[in-house]
Amino acid sequence: MSDLLWQKPGVAVDAQVQAFLAGDDVILDREFFLHDIAASRAHAQGLQRIGILDAGELSALERELEALAADFRDGGFELDARYEDGHSAIEARLVERLGDAGKKIHTGRSRNDQVLVATRLWLKEKLDRVAALARETATLALDRAQAEATLPLPGYTHLQRAVVSSAGLWWAGWAEAFVDDARRALDTAAWIDANPLGTAAGYGVNLPLDRAHTTAALGFARLQVNPAYAQLSRGKFELAALEALGSATLDLRRIAWDLSLFTSAEFGFVALPAQYTTGSSIMPNKRNPDAIELMRATHASVAAARTEIEQLLSLPSGYHRDLQASKGAIFHGFGRGLAALELLPALLANLEWRPERMRAAIDAGMYATDVAVEQAAAGVPFRDAYRAAAESVAQAGEGRTPEASLAARVSPGACADLRLDVLRERLAALPA
Amino acid sequence: MSDLLWQKPGVAVDAQVQAFLAGDDVILDREFFLHDIAASRAHAQGLQRIGILDAGELSALERELEALAADFRDGGFELDARYEDGHSAIEARLVERLGDAGKKIHTGRSRNDQVLVATRLWLKEKLDRVAALARETATLALDRAQAEATLPLPGYTHLQRAVVSSAGLWWAGWAEAFVDDARRALDTAAWIDANPLGTAAGYGVNLPLDRAHTTAALGFARLQVNPAYAQLSRGKFELAALEALGSATLDLRRIAWDLSLFTSAEFGFVALPAQYTTGSSIMPNKRNPDAIELMRATHASVAAARTEIEQLLSLPSGYHRDLQASKGAIFHGFGRGLAALELLPALLANLEWRPERMRAAIDAGMYATDVAVEQAAAGVPFRDAYRAAAESVAQAGEGRTPEASLAARVSPGACADLRLDVLRERLAALPA
Amino acid sequence: MSDLLWQKPGVAVDAQVQAFLAGDDVILDREFFLHDIAASRAHAQGLQRIGILDAGELSALERELEALAADFRDGGFELDARYEDGHSAIEARLVERLGDAGKKIHTGRSRNDQVLVATRLWLKEKLDRVAALARETATLALDRAQAEATLPLPGYTHLQRAVVSSAGLWWAGWAEAFVDDARRALDTAAWIDANPLGTAAGYGVNLPLDRAHTTAALGFARLQVNPAYAQLSRGKFELAALEALGSATLDLRRIAWDLSLFTSAEFGFVALPAQYTTGSSIMPNKRNPDAIELMRATHASVAAARTEIEQLLSLPSGYHRDLQASKGAIFHGFGRGLAALELLPALLANLEWRPERMRAAIDAGMYATDVAVEQAAAGVPFRDAYRAAAESVAQAGEGRTPEASLAARVSPGACADLRLDVLRERLAALPA
Amino acid sequence: MSDLLWQKPGVAVDAQVQAFLAGDDVILDREFFLHDIAASRAHAQGLQRIGILDAGELSALERELEALAADFRDGGFELDARYEDGHSAIEARLVERLGDAGKKIHTGRSRNDQVLVATRLWLKEKLDRVAALARETATLALDRAQAEATLPLPGYTHLQRAVVSSAGLWWAGWAEAFVDDARRALDTAAWIDANPLGTAAGYGVNLPLDRAHTTAALGFARLQVNPAYAQLSRGKFELAALEALGSATLDLRRIAWDLSLFTSAEFGFVALPAQYTTGSSIMPNKRNPDAIELMRATHASVAAARTEIEQLLSLPSGYHRDLQASKGAIFHGFGRGLAALELLPALLANLEWRPERMRAAIDAGMYATDVAVEQAAAGVPFRDAYRAAAESVAQAGEGRTPEASLAARVSPGACADLRLDVLRERLAALPA
Repeated sequence: MSDLLWQKPGVAVDAQVQAFLAGDDVILDREFFLHDIAASRAHAQGLQRIGILDAGELSALERELEALAADFRDGGFELDARYEDGHSAIEARLVERLGDAGKKIHTGRSRNDQVLVATRLWLKEKLDRVAALARETATLALDRAQAEATLPLPGYTHLQRAVVSSAGLWWAGWAEAFVDDARRALDTAAWIDANPLGTAAGYGVNLPLDRAHTTAALGFARLQVNPAYAQLSRGKFELAALEALGSATLDLRRIAWDLSLFTSAEFGFVALPAQYTTGSSIMPNKRNPDAIELMRATHASVAAARTEIEQLLSLPSGYHRDLQASKGAIFHGFGRGLAALELLPALLANLEWRPERMRAAIDAGMYATDVAVEQAAAGVPFRDAYRAAAESVAQAGEGRTPEASLAARVSPGACADLRLDVLRERLAALPA
Repeated sequence: MSDLLWQKPGVAVDAQVQAFLAGDDVILDREFFLHDIAASRAHAQGLQRIGILDAGELSALERELEALAADFRDGGFELDARYEDGHSAIEARLVERLGDAGKKIHTGRSRNDQVLVATRLWLKEKLDRVAALARETATLALDRAQAEATLPLPGYTHLQRAVVSSAGLWWAGWAEAFVDDARRALDTAAWIDANPLGTAAGYGVNLPLDRAHTTAALGFARLQVNPAYAQLSRGKFELAALEALGSATLDLRRIAWDLSLFTSAEFGFVALPAQYTTGSSIMPNKRNPDAIELMRATHASVAAARTEIEQLLSLPSGYHRDLQASKGAIFHGFGRGLAALELLPALLANLEWRPERMRAAIDAGMYATDVAVEQAAAGVPFRDAYRAAAESVAQAGEGRTPEASLAARVSPGACADLRLDVLRERLAALPA
Repeated sequence: MSDLLWQKPGVAVDAQVQAFLAGDDVILDREFFLHDIAASRAHAQGLQRIGILDAGELSALERELEALAADFRDGGFELDARYEDGHSAIEARLVERLGDAGKKIHTGRSRNDQVLVATRLWLKEKLDRVAALARETATLALDRAQAEATLPLPGYTHLQRAVVSSAGLWWAGWAEAFVDDARRALDTAAWIDANPLGTAAGYGVNLPLDRAHTTAALGFARLQVNPAYAQLSRGKFELAALEALGSATLDLRRIAWDLSLFTSAEFGFVALPAQYTTGSSIMPNKRNPDAIELMRATHASVAAARTEIEQLLSLPSGYHRDLQASKGAIFHGFGRGLAALELLPALLANLEWRPERMRAAIDAGMYATDVAVEQAAAGVPFRDAYRAAAESVAQAGEGRTPEASLAARVSPGACADLRLDVLRERLAALPA
Repeated sequence: MSDLLWQKPGVAVDAQVQAFLAGDDVILDREFFLHDIAASRAHAQGLQRIGILDAGELSALERELEALAADFRDGGFELDARYEDGHSAIEARLVERLGDAGKKIHTGRSRNDQVLVATRLWLKEKLDRVAALARETATLALDRAQAEATLPLPGYTHLQRAVVSSAGLWWAGWAEAFVDDARRALDTAAWIDANPLGTAAGYGVNLPLDRAHTTAALGFARLQVNPAYAQLSRGKFELAALEALGSATLDLRRIAWDLSLFTSAEFGFVALPAQYTTGSSIMPNKRNPDAIELMRATHASVAAARTEIEQLLSLPSGYHRDLQASKGAIFHGFGRGLAALELLPALLANLEWRPERMRAAIDAGMYATDVAVEQAAAGVPFRDAYRAAAESVAQAGEGRTPEASLAARVSPGACADLRLDVLRERLAALPA
């Protein structure tokens, strides 16, 4: 490892301990190294605005930061164990290339606010991606809801056949779910959209840092005012981001459950394109819907990431090294979560219904509720109508078809009145 | 138990199984029984608007619902094991009092949307209370920040003395934290503010229910359109509500940690009024800050409630009885969470600093960062200034006072520029 | 509330704070009040053996403790809000009845070791019950495995049809699972079987307490030696107990999943007696397997209890009031967990297979693995045999029957060689 | 990627989907690749014993498996994205080198039992390491307990000064904790010590596999009999292993908390060697006990791993691809957990007490319990003695010293009677 920023001469270093302390920080820091560089640039601009750097120093720093970003992107610079972490690597490179100007970059800054700002930029980007994918999923679901509004699909409660329903209702349900998920991701992105840069180690500094400039330059909506709170928000904001992601991955878990059942031979409602399946090493007959199962498993990783951070956050205020472990957690949670959400729209677009199997699974009893409600509409007190219908469940389907049942389901939002226009409006109303 | 709504004649009932199935539903349902009654009233109005009830039936139902609410409030009606659950109890009472009109109340409704709407009204109310308490805490913290802006308090990182800080900075940090918590509670309340009533068992009904009326009558911001999604939102919305509460209780856990340390003999920065402490059954000398410790423990209950629901939600779409267990979870989480938050403002208002202990804990090294930054401001590259300061840490305090250090801490948000006005504006800008 | 044991004269008490501090302790303490009384009796005997009590005092205390237990059991004594907690209630009652002898009961004891010993006795009892129920379940499963060893059942992986299997294999799998669960409950009971009584507030006392006597009198296997560790084991042992319970409830969750699918119309492999089902308030046709779903939901409560405690346990050593919240958690987790496990043996004993549906779900491809392995046994390299079989999956069933496939499945543990004797031996070998 | 074992000709493959399906399996599989090879060797031996392989084929396979292991160890073979996973890689290499003999290796085996057996061997090894480190920690703690038995240390409850205690009591408490942790790791290793190899895809095969041989050859204590249970134990055993690890890392979290406080300036009881600390990038005065904080954070990773698996395990019986995600979880949990435990013995051996600070923190009130108990021993009813002592807390220390207080603390396990011999016996009695 290159010299440690803070090391005092003559202090013993134990290699095993040092390896434990560094952990996999430099590996992890690759994930938001470009954000760290971007924030370093804004910080340098701020320093020039208050006279710590002169114009020449700033332009040199900007040039070298840009070069470092380019080198990192194309592999010319590798963030590896030569450095304690990505933050130190930036300063080391600038010092190496620029000497004194490089030694000035950390003026009024701590690695504490450096990691905060890089993380926050990264989280905002990821939440935006969650929102975009949720929107895309909702759009696809709305389109299929419209196209398949009258396609009969058995409706279940308790995994027992309940009433006639439609593919349209099923799609529209997921559409509304993902509209909500998109909104929540955006709400959360807005909630964390506060600039922590300029809070140093949690107590500010004796310099009039131009935080208004860095806030604007980095595209933050507002200043995170208080330095102590900037530290307190470490983990708190990460949790909120994971929770917003989790809202989408929980829905993903449930849609994957539907598809896992629907692609079974016993239900047989859905056929999945071959590219979403795998085979077995021993059973020649198998085509398994692994993609669906891995999607179902995804929320577990998001939940694990949440747990990891929540377990850390039993601490007094101020920075503690424990908080460093939150980095790996968000990378794991968002890594898995987004990988699965990225595949979802195409998978949904490609799934094929098997209408004959769906129709065959609609039995006579599934009309009994229709019967009872019709009687109620005709004046029979519902509870009496219900009891009468219960006694002739087997006859409930007489003279009835799935199509007629769906056409009569007129309560707002139900099969005959899906209100896709309302859902489209809500989708369109989400902030860009 | 009174007759089960759905029981068919001649079906065997096993008492132990029945007890397991009923669980403690009637006990739990007391928590939102009044919300269930309110929603029943709106539902009845809707039924009258589409001709299922006549005006006389509606007014009878409204009168009896009001009477039931009054009886429940004053103890004249007890929701107990005579009923399968609160939902059945309402119908049973109406049937008993009104006969056929009572038997009509459940037209177009399922217990599935009944529990959804009662829960949602309850959650909105609780989130509003979280927001109100977070606001109250933030207001108190802002007031004390202003009053104690220049009171020196040692600033820590890693529980090690770091730099001079102030009580003002500490208070303002919590103020900003609780402003964010209030905002999140309100965002979440807005996000779940959708009316599920009228979605029946998850597939709607063959009646043109007047869902616009119930939405308005119950004060919802929008319709939850899709019946399948109404079911999918069970648990999902509960989780979001608990997560918003958890944002506040995590901050509570951290402020309680600060106070737990600050009230120890070793730190000794804070004196706590006697009513927040208890004694020991064996040690005559003890006064223990139990109130603080129970506040610290509170988040565990919120986390447990979250776990309980998240563990349930690995299910296909449609209602499943598993979801019933989410009720106890939210009552536990919000019960504990709000009980602690309710005490927080008064506890904070009552805590007393011990300025002499705070000042005594400020050592010379805590000025070293000031020294290095001053040098940097004077043109020495920061990294060189840092190294120089590191070599004379023991002398860093020469000629310096806590007050002067605080006065020089001019970065925005820091001790000399707390920006309480910005925080007050944000607090004021929160929706009512 | 009666006088607080530790209250000093003239100290202000705030009713709301006091309510928060007391929480629902007296309600919760009912759960192990009898264990607390039993431990108090052993403690009194120990005090007599070291001369703190004389023979008359001891016999008076024993008599009154016995009376208190009897009163509590028959409702003559109610543990309610007159007391701070159950521990104080015992002392209060003894003082009221016996005066000075009562005032001596707490010599050398703290509520800290009092709650530890009561909890530990309670946990041992509950773990023994888990083991007994797991054993009972395993026994039932073994019996049915033997009786239904040759009944064909489709075998699934990924919820896709895989190979022919048998009800016998299914039952034997659950038998082995619950044998392991029983063993784990017993291992855990043995692991926590250490007496904490006599460790006072975590530092022991200046009295030669006869801990060997209380260890023997209360039936503990060993002394929990160190007072500091007695405190550190609070929560740690609770977690271990919940984890052992969780091992069984996770298996319960999975067997409930099987049954939830098997009782669906689509699978249709299992018929469930009516007492395990409920109806719908709106759909006259429904019989829902609620008992199975509530069993599936049970693990969520155990997981929640674990979370609640694990979240608390980020603390320095020594007692902290936070730990008190662990009580409600174990009562919730074991309450729900045992309620479900208690129903399991009868439910399993009562479920009926539907052989014709099971046989109908066995398709030709499910013999393809048999074909490939037969070829491999005949000398064709397996990977080649697999590829050949993959190309003629549709013909794999020619001339084959489920029965013949099962009869050929001779690998140890498989359908033709279930090794129920080995499992029975393991069951019998578990400690009593 | 090389050819997929199961791919049928002409089936479309989507690169993005394929990447999602493969995930980081080949990277993860490096972790137990050597165990997979070892199990493959035992499997080959078993196949030879039932005539599937001849002696020449077996010896060729054994030679090539050994060569593969050697190549993997020295870097000559890299497990990378050419392969779908480690399991396929082994077969691919054997086929490449040996042709037909290689194609026979998978006879009677599925990747399902292959991953089970590799994981199980790995878990046993890791649990043994946990036990060894817990033992080492306990040994060190016992030695220091003996050496520092009479060194006064303030005893706390609620972080408030409670009674005089000793470094000896503190060390002995941790010793007993880690003896229990070692025992639990060993109990758990014994509990999972069952051979799943030979269960194929969860239904066995139509071959008389010699499972007794593989059980003995791989050093398993018993056969995991039932193939369906072998699948059900996936995740269940992983959870148990993580829970045993978690028992140790929870203790680690608590000892780290003690040290975090004790190394603060305010407590000042402990000095930590410089190699366990780091500096700050901005504050020249800081030496932070990062090693302690990262140890404290470790349990969060173990908890996260547990959550990840527990969230997955809401599934019917039979293999599901979801379960694959359990691999990364155990590698993360054990990776972090063991890294921290490995450092613990040396850190504890190196920490230095600061006796003068410890003594200075003992105040007069800390003798009040001694006073009350002495009075009780002299015949005053304890509750009266307690009240009297409470009224003269400030005088409780008159004529008393820490040493005398410790010497009088004679209850078994307390400062004057630490019973280190009992703890040493328990440590020695643990299975090797």
